[in-house]
Amino acid sequence: MKFYKMHGTGNDFVMLLPEESKYVESNNPLEISKKLCDRHFGIGSDGLILMLPSEKADLKMRIFNADGSEAEMCGNGIRCFAKLAKDMNIVNKDKIEVETLAGIIVPEIIRSDDKNSLIRVNMGTPNLKPESIPILGFEGKDSVINQRIQINDKTFLNVTCVSMGNPHCVIFMDYDIKNFPIEGIAPEVEHSAWFPKKTNVEFARVISKSDIELRVWERGVGETLACGTGACATAVAAKLNGFTNGNVNIHLPGGILHIEYETNNVFMTATATLVFEGIIEI
Amino acid sequence: MKFYKMHGTGNDFVMLLPEESKYVESNNPLEISKKLCDRHFGIGSDGLILMLPSEKADLKMRIFNADGSEAEMCGNGIRCFAKLAKDMNIVNKDKIEVETLAGIIVPEIIRSDDKNSLIRVNMGTPNLKPESIPILGFEGKDSVINQRIQINDKTFLNVTCVSMGNPHCVIFMDYDIKNFPIEGIAPEVEHSAWFPKKTNVEFARVISKSDIELRVWERGVGETLACGTGACATAVAAKLNGFTNGNVNIHLPGGILHIEYETNNVFMTATATLVFEGIIEI
Repeated sequence: MKFYKMHGTGNDFVMLLPEESKYVESNNPLEISKKLCDRHFGIGSDGLILMLPSEKADLKMRIFNADGSEAEMCGNGIRCFAKLAKDMNIVNKDKIEVETLAGIIVPEIIRSDDKNSLIRVNMGTPNLKPESIPILGFEGKDSVINQRIQINDKTFLNVTCVSMGNPHCVIFMDYDIKNFPIEGIAPEVEHSAWFPKKTNVEFARVISKSDIELRVWERGVGETLACGTGACATAVAAKLNGFTNGNVNIHLPGGILHIEYETNNVFMTATATLVFEGIIEI
Repeated sequence: MKFYKMHGTGNDFVMLLPEESKYVESNNPLEISKKLCDRHFGIGSDGLILMLPSEKADLKMRIFNADGSEAEMCGNGIRCFAKLAKDMNIVNKDKIEVETLAGIIVPEIIRSDDKNSLIRVNMGTPNLKPESIPILGFEGKDSVINQRIQINDKTFLNVTCVSMGNPHCVIFMDYDIKNFPIEGIAPEVEHSAWFPKKTNVEFARVISKSDIELRVWERGVGETLACGTGACATAVAAKLNGFTNGNVNIHLPGGILHIEYETNNVFMTATATLVFEGIIEI
């Protein structure tokens, strides 16, 4: 079976074209995903992405995590999806309507070469309501911006909470983010009683009006190289705090995500990279 | 550039044929290895193996770790090397002489299909002398077998030390090995004052006269799926303790290694598996 290995700022995927995707979809994609994503015995990736026909859009994307569970959407994955669909002539346009479990998403290819493409995606509308995030202790309030929050023996001086469809707790700090002991601290935030559905946790340092350094602890996963919704939530939070305008570069361990937050929509622009192509027997 | 992705009981490698190997060897193999072995931005593997012509043997194997350093030899890697060399008709025999930094090693293909081969390798002669391992505190003794050793607040009741060219501290225990908290305990052994050059650490449970369950903590690396020299050291230690005869199956998280310890040589027999082939631009 032919496959393509791609990554979006370090978030990496095994990608299949429609013929192979249809085969996998009808043959236990959960099990195949676990097998292909295994980094020692399989191809190795964060997820498996299927490219399928759609009745509502140009194409349908299904994305399976390495544990076999299906994800609704993935900002890094859909950039890879758009690049592959265009490069392989599955569609012949730069703005591609993609059906996902989170609705129709429209990635736009800004520029492209064989290896890398720059792609812009509308990541939707942030929701600030405490009960939508959800976070407890702010009933009746419109939002949680620049709040001092105590978790066990730690006090976080500036916490801002944003839902991008999933919960984000953005913590601004002056600390040297690269050396911040995220593994010791983030789980306490993720599992604290403030967040009844747990939360993603962002540790952010504002470098300038247009640049933020960020590390993200993903709920149920741990630290990742580049979380798309985390970058969006951080850009929204930074603007709400007056640290930046809506147009920022988010510097993550896996690379840079450019975020625009305007007229209530959040757009993410970043690269998608083809690493190699291969053939595997399944 | 064409490559093959293989694994030996979960220890996985990017493998190149001679033409590509010669190109990489003359173009900074350390840097290329780091790039190709990266699990998010590259192909992803524990190491890169080059197949080169030899003046002393059928072929020469060079193996680079994911950090770019060159390894002397690797029991799991050389099985993959032998399978690929035979399957791709680089050599046309089942017993292949391979030049390595640890001397000439002769893997023998026992049986083979497209995906899997069973391969037997002479892993050399164990050395039991305390100063050869090296371990302190046993000066003048011939060996360290079934010794009670205290490390910090922990007492290990049966410690046997074996050098297979590298140091191994084999700890026999009745504990449920699968759930043993190796990450908390093994580093204390690895770095203890007993071992001036540090040590690999084996936690072993004897299941029967012919079967041992094992987890290995590799010096400077951490736990791995299947350490070849660790399995050899454990088989030697188990025979010296009278737990087994010299012919045992070592059950590791990555699979089973069959070890024969006879007439002072240790032979390891296990599988090598082709996972996929691919093309990458470098």
